[in-house]
Amino acid sequence: MPHQTHTITITTNGPSLTEFTRETANWIGTQAITAGLLTLFCRHTSASLLIQENAAPEVQDDLIAAFQRFAPEGPHYLHDSEGPDDMPAHIKAALTQTHLSIPVVDGRLALGTWQGIYLFEHRRQAHQRQIVMHLTGD
Amino acid sequence: MPHQTHTITITTNGPSLTEFTRETANWIGTQAITAGLLTLFCRHTSASLLIQENAAPEVQDDLIAAFQRFAPEGPHYLHDSEGPDDMPAHIKAALTQTHLSIPVVDGRLALGTWQGIYLFEHRRQAHQRQIVMHLTGD
Amino acid sequence: MPHQTHTITITTNGPSLTEFTRETANWIGTQAITAGLLTLFCRHTSASLLIQENAAPEVQDDLIAAFQRFAPEGPHYLHDSEGPDDMPAHIKAALTQTHLSIPVVDGRLALGTWQGIYLFEHRRQAHQRQIVMHLTGD
Repeated sequence: MPHQTHTITITTNGPSLTEFTRETANWIGTQAITAGLLTLFCRHTSASLLIQENAAPEVQDDLIAAFQRFAPEGPHYLHDSEGPDDMPAHIKAALTQTHLSIPVVDGRLALGTWQGIYLFEHRRQAHQRQIVMHLTGD
Repeated sequence: MPHQTHTITITTNGPSLTEFTRETANWIGTQAITAGLLTLFCRHTSASLLIQENAAPEVQDDLIAAFQRFAPEGPHYLHDSEGPDDMPAHIKAALTQTHLSIPVVDGRLALGTWQGIYLFEHRRQAHQRQIVMHLTGD
Repeated sequence: MPHQTHTITITTNGPSLTEFTRETANWIGTQAITAGLLTLFCRHTSASLLIQENAAPEVQDDLIAAFQRFAPEGPHYLHDSEGPDDMPAHIKAALTQTHLSIPVVDGRLALGTWQGIYLFEHRRQAHQRQIVMHLTGD
């Protein structure tokens, strides 16, 4: 059974959700595999992955605000050498996903109608984030 | 190496944890694959998946209450066009899992003694939730 | 396509993050498979898995403290028959991962430079925790 790996880089510029559903689907479209499993892996500990609602853009703002409440900046962290937004970023990453797996059926991701694939950036400064895609199937 | 895909629908009626371990094990029991990996994928952004304690039913009530505290309803969300329980549902889904992967060994899920597989419904109204099962192995 | 399963046991002694990246990499090093997908599965509902920063040890202390805030002990849980730290442990497990999947490329885990694989123990008493490793590929 064949399998393929591919790495993409997403540039971010502060806390945000960047959708890359189309980029993922486009890569799958170039592969001979039409049925199997896609796994996405984020190679970072202060950014993460999320499948979320892709219709209403304000959902993304509400998600960013909610995670801000879960892990506010403040003087109560031991780890502060990389800036006040670093430890909150690790906590937000721990609360979400480092990897996602999605079945592929008939050459398409088995996402629901309203599901999009997002990179969730938790740091303030600009970053280049690498995501490894692994596809296995027939 | 063979692989199989199967979709089940679970009807929910308000915030709840619905166990579907047996339904999952039954499907695996009908497959020729006896060693490999099962992946479950929830095709929704206001319901999610969870592996949790299957012995004490009050654990489920405590989990529902805890997630209610993490994402209470209120006037502080930008996205409210689908009802006051919609944005909290997205946040609860973001805090849990859209997919689960479980090894299959000797024709059985490698779950621990106290682990059950649950659909976590976050909306108040009745819903039909689709879960795609993907099994790969020998 | 071959696949292999292997189970390791980690002994814990109270709330902690135990890194087992090297143990995982060592097992992969003994396998003929050099490209594919590794899945780790934790067979417990009061301990969980996490990929996190492996450089600064105080990150681990801050993560443990953050999850303590998310699920403090207290009289507000229905499920208390297994001790005051049991229901908080289930909530912390629900907020993190029961399983992790990581691509394997050229015989090595595709982890980022600062990523380590951790068992997150949530109970106070000593425990033996089982993690099932599943590797598939070529």
